[in-house]
Amino acid sequence: MSVRTGILLVVSGPSGSGKTTLCRRLADLGEVRYSVSCTTRAPRPGEVNGRDYHFLQTSEFQRLVEAGEFLEHAEVHGNHYGTLRSEVLGHLDQGIDVVMDIDVQGAAQVRACNDPGIMRARVDLFVMPPSEEELESRLSGRGTDDPEVIALRLRNALQEMSHWREYRYMLHSSTRERDFERFRALVEAQRMRVSRLT
Amino acid sequence: MSVRTGILLVVSGPSGSGKTTLCRRLADLGEVRYSVSCTTRAPRPGEVNGRDYHFLQTSEFQRLVEAGEFLEHAEVHGNHYGTLRSEVLGHLDQGIDVVMDIDVQGAAQVRACNDPGIMRARVDLFVMPPSEEELESRLSGRGTDDPEVIALRLRNALQEMSHWREYRYMLHSSTRERDFERFRALVEAQRMRVSRLT
Repeated sequence: MSVRTGILLVVSGPSGSGKTTLCRRLADLGEVRYSVSCTTRAPRPGEVNGRDYHFLQTSEFQRLVEAGEFLEHAEVHGNHYGTLRSEVLGHLDQGIDVVMDIDVQGAAQVRACNDPGIMRARVDLFVMPPSEEELESRLSGRGTDDPEVIALRLRNALQEMSHWREYRYMLHSSTRERDFERFRALVEAQRMRVSRLT
Repeated sequence: MSVRTGILLVVSGPSGSGKTTLCRRLADLGEVRYSVSCTTRAPRPGEVNGRDYHFLQTSEFQRLVEAGEFLEHAEVHGNHYGTLRSEVLGHLDQGIDVVMDIDVQGAAQVRACNDPGIMRARVDLFVMPPSEEELESRLSGRGTDDPEVIALRLRNALQEMSHWREYRYMLHSSTRERDFERFRALVEAQRMRVSRLT
């Protein structure tokens, strides 16, 4: 009665919302599996292939698109991003919860997907920064970038934020600890969903 | 953006599942309002009118039924039980979360209710005893009753348990503390539901 299929937790939110930290932290506790996306963009300093992303050549990415291997994929600022079906589906069947840290375009594709395994598993969350002021401060705080880059990042963030109503759940960020408590509560609650008990 | 309407958390489960303790404990913390039911049965020792139940004469109960004042009502073992709309609706509009500790018949009526305020607010949970053995032990453990009464209670509990799939969430009871953590997580998660943010 309490055997269940995995949760597919789709998490979006602008840069500076803290969503990636939430997802990584829960995965580091061993509670969920972090779904590693593919990308054609170049690794940033410190990023590890296979942990942060699967870094692919554009030709390889295109081949996988054509083979239908992606659950979702999108182009953002000239770079391709996507999640392989294989990164997700097998785990769900085994009752392993998977968290996908993806943008609003990708989330919309997962929402539109009519694979029964995905439909049963998915639940989506938008992580909202505490305020526009705090968001601006977080985006500037990274240090190295010039004001124009920060302004662009802020415009992108605000554009992304306009999509929050498309999600089932919204976490309005406050403190790091409180955010994590609520994030965990969402996963805990989803584990009690009758529709995933087999 | 983060103003929201209240949650109507409908909780069922057999005697011995611990559901009433969960509901009362959350209400005692001030996190939710416990919806006090009306009943025509006699008060048991220690029960307080207005806290445990609103104890009513059958004629008064019938008058309220005819006036359409009940959100749900049912007859169980010859006694009437019901929840007044006034006990619930005004609180939800003010963003106060209400927990209803009711049986499967009552829960089915709340589920069938097409009042938009109720439809937006409601979420239901079935609390399942850890095992049939543990349930029997909990039902016997109350002490004063004879074996036939206990056997009847167990049959009723098993009958009630057959309805768990009608609920959206199911909490399979383990320890008292763990149950409460999960119960609280469900409320916490429901507070992030976009459909209740106005």
